[in-house]
Amino acid sequence: MLQAPMAAEILAQATDLVGYAPYLARVPNRPPLHTGAQVRHSSDNGSEMERARLALRLAQSGRDVAVVSGGDPGVFAMASAVFEAIEQGPSVWRGLDVQVIPGISALLAVAAKAGAPLGGDFCAISLSDNRKPWAIVTRRLALAAQAEFAIALYNVRSVARPWQLDAALDMLRQALPGETPVVFARAVSRREEDVSIVALSQAAADNADMRSLVLIGSRHTRWISRSGGGHWVYTPRTVL
Amino acid sequence: MLQAPMAAEILAQATDLVGYAPYLARVPNRPPLHTGAQVRHSSDNGSEMERARLALRLAQSGRDVAVVSGGDPGVFAMASAVFEAIEQGPSVWRGLDVQVIPGISALLAVAAKAGAPLGGDFCAISLSDNRKPWAIVTRRLALAAQAEFAIALYNVRSVARPWQLDAALDMLRQALPGETPVVFARAVSRREEDVSIVALSQAAADNADMRSLVLIGSRHTRWISRSGGGHWVYTPRTVL
Repeated sequence: MLQAPMAAEILAQATDLVGYAPYLARVPNRPPLHTGAQVRHSSDNGSEMERARLALRLAQSGRDVAVVSGGDPGVFAMASAVFEAIEQGPSVWRGLDVQVIPGISALLAVAAKAGAPLGGDFCAISLSDNRKPWAIVTRRLALAAQAEFAIALYNVRSVARPWQLDAALDMLRQALPGETPVVFARAVSRREEDVSIVALSQAAADNADMRSLVLIGSRHTRWISRSGGGHWVYTPRTVL
Repeated sequence: MLQAPMAAEILAQATDLVGYAPYLARVPNRPPLHTGAQVRHSSDNGSEMERARLALRLAQSGRDVAVVSGGDPGVFAMASAVFEAIEQGPSVWRGLDVQVIPGISALLAVAAKAGAPLGGDFCAISLSDNRKPWAIVTRRLALAAQAEFAIALYNVRSVARPWQLDAALDMLRQALPGETPVVFARAVSRREEDVSIVALSQAAADNADMRSLVLIGSRHTRWISRSGGGHWVYTPRTVL
């Protein structure tokens, strides 16, 4: 688990932790020098707004609350839900002291494992059509390919959304060379981490599940063969 | 300085540190439990490829080398230069054990200070026309605005590139509402940090220098007034 020192300190100080159960389970018990019990409020994955409102109500009552998120809380994660709840909630919430602690987003962790595919301009797109119409997703993918961005895809697949990733890969095959590198990464920075790099022509959604992030190179992204087998991929900083 | 624990460990173990002088100056001396001197090879800002080749030559000779970068090394930084040097260099470099240690990129640190402006789809574009023609920069900006991405601008200004940021802001004013939030951030996570949020209609390059990152909301990004004065900005996860 990649955890910034600042996050560790704040987690140790909090009187209340609020978060999706598997993320909370990764937070170590706080060191004994802190007095008083730390209360853990765990929830399932679907209820971000409920979680945000619970955290804000606790903070309003004077508790020191940490909302736990995976990766970076600002990237397709809880920070946006908390501010949405503040905007829609009682005006007293606008007086709370809210700090967002940045983390290492999955796109940075995955890129580091594969080489430097985000060395040039890039974008990040959530493939979930729960939160926006699929037509917007495909429009953004097409514009991203035209812009020659490397593309990080979040929320690529779930039981309820099995076909979206293959549809996206099919679209991108129309716009990009078949040898464009595609990085499939599952559970990055966890013990069960699995990272593979394939050509876009061979890429298929079978390689991904709900814990995966998929990174698609731009037309400038290059393959380097490693002596010991396998490849690095990187995007040069210079575009001629 | 936001430093991942893994980076701290690797910096402590290295026999040689290679980097731009101001970044090297932020690395603490390694703890006394490590034996042998740690050699610091500092250089000026312009010579990334020279720096990368020096690091690779040292590694080839058996040294344990850490190349030091600001933010995340994979985002407009040294990792791409190292792989470019490997691709162009002697084949023995393809056998080296190269690890990229992810960090907290400036776009994540800045977003966290402002609220959650990267809560939806986003992109990152370097404004430097040293490394790509200005026509490519403007084309990418126009496509990013069409795609309704929040936009993080890197390398916004230098003594040699004084006009590019105003030109980019002018372009974006043609495509986006005047009230779109623009975050100007200088020296984020440093003592002299300075973050301000203004409307796109008021945004000007005077607010930025070579240590700045500029974050432009999408047309979905929202302002929240804080009771104590000032604002948060966030991009909702849902697009209707």
